[in-house]
Amino acid sequence: MSEYTITYIKNEKPKEKPKSDQLSFGKYFTDHMFIQDYNADKGWHNPRIVPYQPLVLDPAAIVFHYGQTVFEGLKAYRTKRDKIQLFRPDKNMERLNRSNDRLCIPRIDEEYAIDAIKHLVHIDQDWVPDAPGTSLYIRPFIISTEPYLGVAPSATYQFIVILSPVGAYYEEGINPVKIAVENQFVRAVKGGTGEAKTAGNYASSLKAQEQVADEGYAQVLWLDGVEKKYIEEVGSMNVFFKINGEVVTPALNGSILEGVTRNSVIQLLEYWEIPVVERKISMEELYEHYQNGELEEAFGSGTAAVISPVGELAWEGKKMEINNGKTGEIAKRLYDTLTGIQYGSEKDPFNWTVKVKY
Amino acid sequence: MSEYTITYIKNEKPKEKPKSDQLSFGKYFTDHMFIQDYNADKGWHNPRIVPYQPLVLDPAAIVFHYGQTVFEGLKAYRTKRDKIQLFRPDKNMERLNRSNDRLCIPRIDEEYAIDAIKHLVHIDQDWVPDAPGTSLYIRPFIISTEPYLGVAPSATYQFIVILSPVGAYYEEGINPVKIAVENQFVRAVKGGTGEAKTAGNYASSLKAQEQVADEGYAQVLWLDGVEKKYIEEVGSMNVFFKINGEVVTPALNGSILEGVTRNSVIQLLEYWEIPVVERKISMEELYEHYQNGELEEAFGSGTAAVISPVGELAWEGKKMEINNGKTGEIAKRLYDTLTGIQYGSEKDPFNWTVKVKY
Ligand SMILES: Cc1ncc(COP(=O)(O)O)c(C=O)c1O
Ligand SMILES: Cc1ncc(COP(=O)(O)O)c(C=O)c1O
Repeated sequence: MSEYTITYIKNEKPKEKPKSDQLSFGKYFTDHMFIQDYNADKGWHNPRIVPYQPLVLDPAAIVFHYGQTVFEGLKAYRTKRDKIQLFRPDKNMERLNRSNDRLCIPRIDEEYAIDAIKHLVHIDQDWVPDAPGTSLYIRPFIISTEPYLGVAPSATYQFIVILSPVGAYYEEGINPVKIAVENQFVRAVKGGTGEAKTAGNYASSLKAQEQVADEGYAQVLWLDGVEKKYIEEVGSMNVFFKINGEVVTPALNGSILEGVTRNSVIQLLEYWEIPVVERKISMEELYEHYQNGELEEAFGSGTAAVISPVGELAWEGKKMEINNGKTGEIAKRLYDTLTGIQYGSEKDPFNWTVKVKY
Repeated sequence: MSEYTITYIKNEKPKEKPKSDQLSFGKYFTDHMFIQDYNADKGWHNPRIVPYQPLVLDPAAIVFHYGQTVFEGLKAYRTKRDKIQLFRPDKNMERLNRSNDRLCIPRIDEEYAIDAIKHLVHIDQDWVPDAPGTSLYIRPFIISTEPYLGVAPSATYQFIVILSPVGAYYEEGINPVKIAVENQFVRAVKGGTGEAKTAGNYASSLKAQEQVADEGYAQVLWLDGVEKKYIEEVGSMNVFFKINGEVVTPALNGSILEGVTRNSVIQLLEYWEIPVVERKISMEELYEHYQNGELEEAFGSGTAAVISPVGELAWEGKKMEINNGKTGEIAKRLYDTLTGIQYGSEKDPFNWTVKVKY
């Protein structure tokens, strides 16, 4: 048996599956999970698909104390023809390795990891829901497991993949959200971990999120940590603005997460020959455009919502209503095209989708 | 039985204790641990001291994904008269609650937590080593345990305390270390989580640490994340400079951890009527003082090393040798006094020590 052969232990007590209208996000988990171990001697070894089960970890495991951990998020979609497909998993595994580099975690074999994900999704294929807008969320993550309280990279790790059937993000079709610009808290700063997908960035964001939720906002828009002037991204989305016919998104600067959806949006806009530019953009500039009637659309991009139009942006006591609080044309077209590709009802000119076969 | 009564399950298979010359830091753990659970209904409940054992957690537990976790570090010392005492545990529990506030984790009852720590240390009292400079490191920490992939504060938590006998930091008496000023990576920024003791700050620091270790430096000196000019702190220590007879330490600014040792150093210096000031200080200013022969001492302060003299500071290709690479007078006096108080051989004018009796 090769080091790479995945051992499979079947779950003999499968759970009851939730109804598609109960799904919401990240609450239910499927019958199986993938696990692989790392140590210096063997590298990544012992890949296995086992019944979904608790992790058993020493209380001194580094992940609990020093947060040496990275994760990813992608989805499996059920097509009308009842096939299951992934959206750009190669991009997620590339990013996972970039995150690994930043967090001093050993790299994974990207192709092998995609194979393991396909294998796992195949085994739990009945968990991929079929109601419109639903999907199977895939959460690969790596945790540091060495029981050691010195501040140093762990000697051992586990790479784990869990699956969660998730509901339609928009219950009544794509719908604008209200976003508040965050002026007090900072998510990330150049030289920090902002461009990695790692736990600490999200821990840091909870407080800001909690405060704006009380005021009725869905998420915060983060500004740069240095000057608190330049727009970075939304809680779990990158962000785009249509200004005078041109689509602008903050340039990657070391503290912004490079979204797979962001990359796809840029490619689609270029393909459609709609002007799109990655550059620094400040809230002041954005507000000026807004006042001059030049801010035509604003939307976020991310795996969870795909495209999320921003109907209202609150900043320093000012409320900017964008496109009369309605979904813009470009946001709608991107949403329809991206979800069309993901669910297999639209042509896939870039070969973004990957079939799950085993 | 009150909600507050600690259940005790004795470890019937105690481990063999390591010899004091094998101890090093954070590698061995005692026979028991303290655990308490939290949920919204019951608040903190079910406090128990149980055999040291693995944690069993859902793979979707928030701590693995979004790093919602905080920790503390303090020590128990065995005195010459064979008593066991803690050093300012109230300060650690206050800081734990400040960290909790930042991370959206429910506050703990500080006095109760100190009691629980005393109780646990009492049970494992034979693990408090007696060789000079050794101690029992105490690691209280709180992890978020709800299995949920939405980015939101957890509904459930565990408060855990583990104990680790640790060796003398300096095997041959207090000894200066080499420190490198970090110019690329950033630990924390105002508005982030720098002043909280939370996992993400340490995850972020691993990469910088790894790079300087290759060049023979013990730790990095962090600069502020905004201008990368002002001195903040060392990996796990606050930092002090004696300049022209005055002791200077960076003022707390939201991104520096407020060390218990830092606070004790300031109090001692004031008590001794040695000028001490908390203010902003840039590397440029420090270097100027160094060139003018005015930089007389540099040292770090933290629970692990107590006082750690800095013999060499490397910054942008320049090497500053401080006090001829030797331990300075004030560093030595602080070290002797603080360890004297901690081990009960010196008077304790501030009532910093707390006896462990049960
Ligand atoms: C901080 C942050 N920014 C942006 C994104 C969007 O990235 P993606 O399009 O790959 O889902 C996410 C979500 O994954 C995120 O967590
Ligand atoms: C980042 C950081 N700064 C400073 C300190 C020193 O704090 P204390 O004196 O409370 O140990 C520590 C260690 O706990 C630390 O982790």
